[in-house]
Amino acid sequence: MPAPIAIGLLGLGTVGGGLARALSEKAAFIERYVGAPVLLRRVLVRDEAKQRVPLPTGASLTTDANDILADPDIAIVVEVMGGEEPALSYIQKSLHRGKHVVTANKEVLAKHLPKVLAHAAEHGVALRFEASVAGGIPLIRPLVEDLAGNDLSAVYAIINGTTNYMLTRMRREGLSYADALAEAQRLGYAEADPSTDVDGVDAAYKLAILSSLAFHTQVRDTDVYREGIVRLAPVDFRYAAELGYAIKLLATGRRVGDAVEARVHPAFISDASPLADVDGVLNAVELEGDLVDWAMFQGPGAGREATASAVLGDLLAIARGIATGAPVPPPPSLDRALPILPMAQLTSEYYLRLQAQDRPGVMAQVTKVLGDAGVSLASVIQKESHTGSLAEIVITTHSASEAAVQQAATALSELSAVREVSNLVRIKGGQG
Amino acid sequence: MPAPIAIGLLGLGTVGGGLARALSEKAAFIERYVGAPVLLRRVLVRDEAKQRVPLPTGASLTTDANDILADPDIAIVVEVMGGEEPALSYIQKSLHRGKHVVTANKEVLAKHLPKVLAHAAEHGVALRFEASVAGGIPLIRPLVEDLAGNDLSAVYAIINGTTNYMLTRMRREGLSYADALAEAQRLGYAEADPSTDVDGVDAAYKLAILSSLAFHTQVRDTDVYREGIVRLAPVDFRYAAELGYAIKLLATGRRVGDAVEARVHPAFISDASPLADVDGVLNAVELEGDLVDWAMFQGPGAGREATASAVLGDLLAIARGIATGAPVPPPPSLDRALPILPMAQLTSEYYLRLQAQDRPGVMAQVTKVLGDAGVSLASVIQKESHTGSLAEIVITTHSASEAAVQQAATALSELSAVREVSNLVRIKGGQG
Repeated sequence: MPAPIAIGLLGLGTVGGGLARALSEKAAFIERYVGAPVLLRRVLVRDEAKQRVPLPTGASLTTDANDILADPDIAIVVEVMGGEEPALSYIQKSLHRGKHVVTANKEVLAKHLPKVLAHAAEHGVALRFEASVAGGIPLIRPLVEDLAGNDLSAVYAIINGTTNYMLTRMRREGLSYADALAEAQRLGYAEADPSTDVDGVDAAYKLAILSSLAFHTQVRDTDVYREGIVRLAPVDFRYAAELGYAIKLLATGRRVGDAVEARVHPAFISDASPLADVDGVLNAVELEGDLVDWAMFQGPGAGREATASAVLGDLLAIARGIATGAPVPPPPSLDRALPILPMAQLTSEYYLRLQAQDRPGVMAQVTKVLGDAGVSLASVIQKESHTGSLAEIVITTHSASEAAVQQAATALSELSAVREVSNLVRIKGGQG
Repeated sequence: MPAPIAIGLLGLGTVGGGLARALSEKAAFIERYVGAPVLLRRVLVRDEAKQRVPLPTGASLTTDANDILADPDIAIVVEVMGGEEPALSYIQKSLHRGKHVVTANKEVLAKHLPKVLAHAAEHGVALRFEASVAGGIPLIRPLVEDLAGNDLSAVYAIINGTTNYMLTRMRREGLSYADALAEAQRLGYAEADPSTDVDGVDAAYKLAILSSLAFHTQVRDTDVYREGIVRLAPVDFRYAAELGYAIKLLATGRRVGDAVEARVHPAFISDASPLADVDGVLNAVELEGDLVDWAMFQGPGAGREATASAVLGDLLAIARGIATGAPVPPPPSLDRALPILPMAQLTSEYYLRLQAQDRPGVMAQVTKVLGDAGVSLASVIQKESHTGSLAEIVITTHSASEAAVQQAATALSELSAVREVSNLVRIKGGQG
C-alpha cells in the first residue's frame, strides 16, 4: 500500500466541516479510489475551544497556519476560509512549498487567477477550484477539459443563490425587495449585510472565473460590469410575466469579435429558456460553443455537502495523481489577452418602465425620443399608474446599443411630461 | 516539439465526418493544447469512392481495418462505426496492440463494458467514451470523476432524442403516435425502421452504461426493463396535462437497498420537474448523490458537431496524457456485483386509463379491485368516452408495488363492465 496522503485544511466552517465529515465517513471508499489512504492531519481554525464536528482520528486543530504550511508531510492544502487575505498568502505559500492546493475561494481567484495558476505551474503542483463556482455542480472541469475542443462563445449563469431565492419569491409571491430580503435573512440565505449578494459582487467573482476559463484570457472581478437587484419592484415582475419573461440576476460572459463582454445585472429571460425555471437557491450555467452548440448545468450552488462534493472531487483527482505518480496536468491557458468590451458598446434588447403624465401627446414624445436615439420599439404597454394622474409606460426595444438606450433614458427623464424612468432592464439574448 | 500523435478513425459517417473536420480546422489550437501535433492518419470506410468531407493533409482512406489496427504508429483509435460487430473486435484488437481507444459505441459498451475496460487496463491504455451517452453533454467524466466522492443513488435521464421529439409533438400539438413518427422520419430524426428508438433499445444501452458507472456494478442492456412509447395516445397527454404532468421516455437507474433498478419506459413527470421541460431532441440527465444532492446536465444528445465535441474532448485528454507522459488513469470500478431488482418488486406511483360501461356501480367495482390488491388511489377522473356508451376512467395511485398493480390491471381487464385497460404508465418519483 502506498504511503498515506496527508491533508491540511484551512478553515472549518460550513464547507470545511462538510469535508472533514466526508473524509472521515468515506475513508475506506476514498482509500480504494485513490489507491492510498487520504488522511486529514491538521485543521486551521480561529478558536480551538469552539464546539465543532468530530474530526477523523489523527487530525488535530491549530490556530497557527504554519503548522500546515510548513509541515513537509502535508501534500495537499484545502483552503475553505474565504476572503482575499490571508487566504491568498496561504495559497501562495502552500504552492511555493510544493503543496497541491484545492480552494473554493472565488474572491482570490477572481482577483488573482493567472498569478496563482502560474505559481502552481512553476512549482509543479496542481491548483484546483471546482467549488469556487456553482457549489456542487461539476462545471470547471467540464468547461476546461471535456469541452476543450470547443471555441466557447458565451456563458450565461445564475450563480448567486441568495438573490435567486429573493427573485423567485418576488416573482411567485409578489413580495417586495425588502420583504424578500428580510425573508432570505430569516432563513439564513442572506447575511445581515447582504451587499455582497444583492449588489452582484459574489456573482461577479464567479463570472470572472468562468469567463477567464471559457475565453482563455484574464477577466478580473473589476472587469465585470455590475448592477444589483435593489431597483426591481413587484410591478416589474408583473410586466415581465405579461410579456413572457422571468427576471433573474444574470451573469453574462460573451465573446464579441475579439473582445469579451462580462456583466452581472438583472435580466429579462424568456419563459421558454430553461434558465427562466431555475428557481430558489439553485444555480445553473449555460455554455455555448462551436461544436456542442449549447449545454446547461444545474444544481445546488451552495451548501455544506454540495460544496464538499466539489472539494472532495478535486481532492480525489489530486490524490490519485500523487498515488499513481502522474505528472500535474498543464494549467488552463489564459494567455489570449482579450480586451473587455466597454459597457457602452453592448448591444442588447431592453425593458424600460417609466411614469409620465396621463395626457395626450406624451406617448408621441416618449417614442420620438427613442426613435431619435435610434432605438426601435418591440412592444409598448401603457397603463394607469397606481398613483393617480400618472400613466405607467412599459417599452421593450429591439436590439440597440447600450449607449443609445442610456442616452434615450436620460433624455426621457428630462422630458417635462415624464416623472421618472423607473427601471431599465436588459433582456437576455442568445439561444436558450 | 514532441512527436506527432497519430490517429486512426474507424467510420466516417456523421460523427466521424464532424471529427475529421474539427481535427483539420482546429489543428493549431489542438497542437497548443496537447503540446504535440495530433494528426489524423488513416480512416476506415466501406467505400473509398464515395463523396466525403475533405480530410486533413496526410490522412488517407482505407477499406481494410488492419491498415489502422496493425499500424504501429497509430497511438489512438477512434471508433465511431456503431453496431456491435465488427466494432467490438476492432476495439479489442486496438487495445490489445497498445492503442488507446475513444468510442461512441453505446451498444458495445452496454454489452461489454467490464470486459473492454479490463482489457484496456491490462494493456495499459485508456478507453474513453464520453460520446456514448447524451452526445455533446459532458456527463461521463463528471459522473465518474467530479462526483467521485458521492454515493450516487439515482439517475433519471431523457437520452433518446427521437422519442423525445415525438413525445414533445404529441404533447404540444396533440399529434398521434403515427403522425409524430412520420414527422420525425421526414425530418431525419427517426430511421425507416424506428424500433431501436421507439422501443427504448437505444435508451436502454445508454442507461446500462450510466447505471454501471453510477453504481459501480455491471448493468447490461439485457438487465434493463424496457417498454416503448407506442401505446401512448393523444388522450394520455391530455390527462397528463390535466393532472400536472409531462410524459417522457424516461430511463431510470436507482439504488434500492443493495440492488439496482434499471428501466426505460414512458413516465409521467411532474410539471414542476426540470425534466418535464426538456423538449425536442434535447437530452437531459439528473443525478442524485449523498453529497451533491441533485445535479442536472442538459444539451444536444446527438448531431454531428455535438457528438464530435465529446469525441474530441476524449481525444484531447488522451493525447495530452501521451504528450506529458502521464500514466493512464485507473478505469472506473464496476466490481460491486449488485443484483438487478426484479421489475415485480418495483415501487412506484401509477397512472391507469381504462374504458368501462357507463352505468351505476362500475366505479365501485373498479376501485374495489384496486383496494383488494392493496393499491390506494391518489386521484380519479371519470369522463364520457369518445365512443358512446363507454366511460373513460383515469386513476392515479399512491406508491404501490408493480406486482400488485399489474395483478389489479389484469383483474380489471377481466371485469365484465371493463372493456379494456387502455394504458398503464408509471409516475416518476425522486426529487427533481
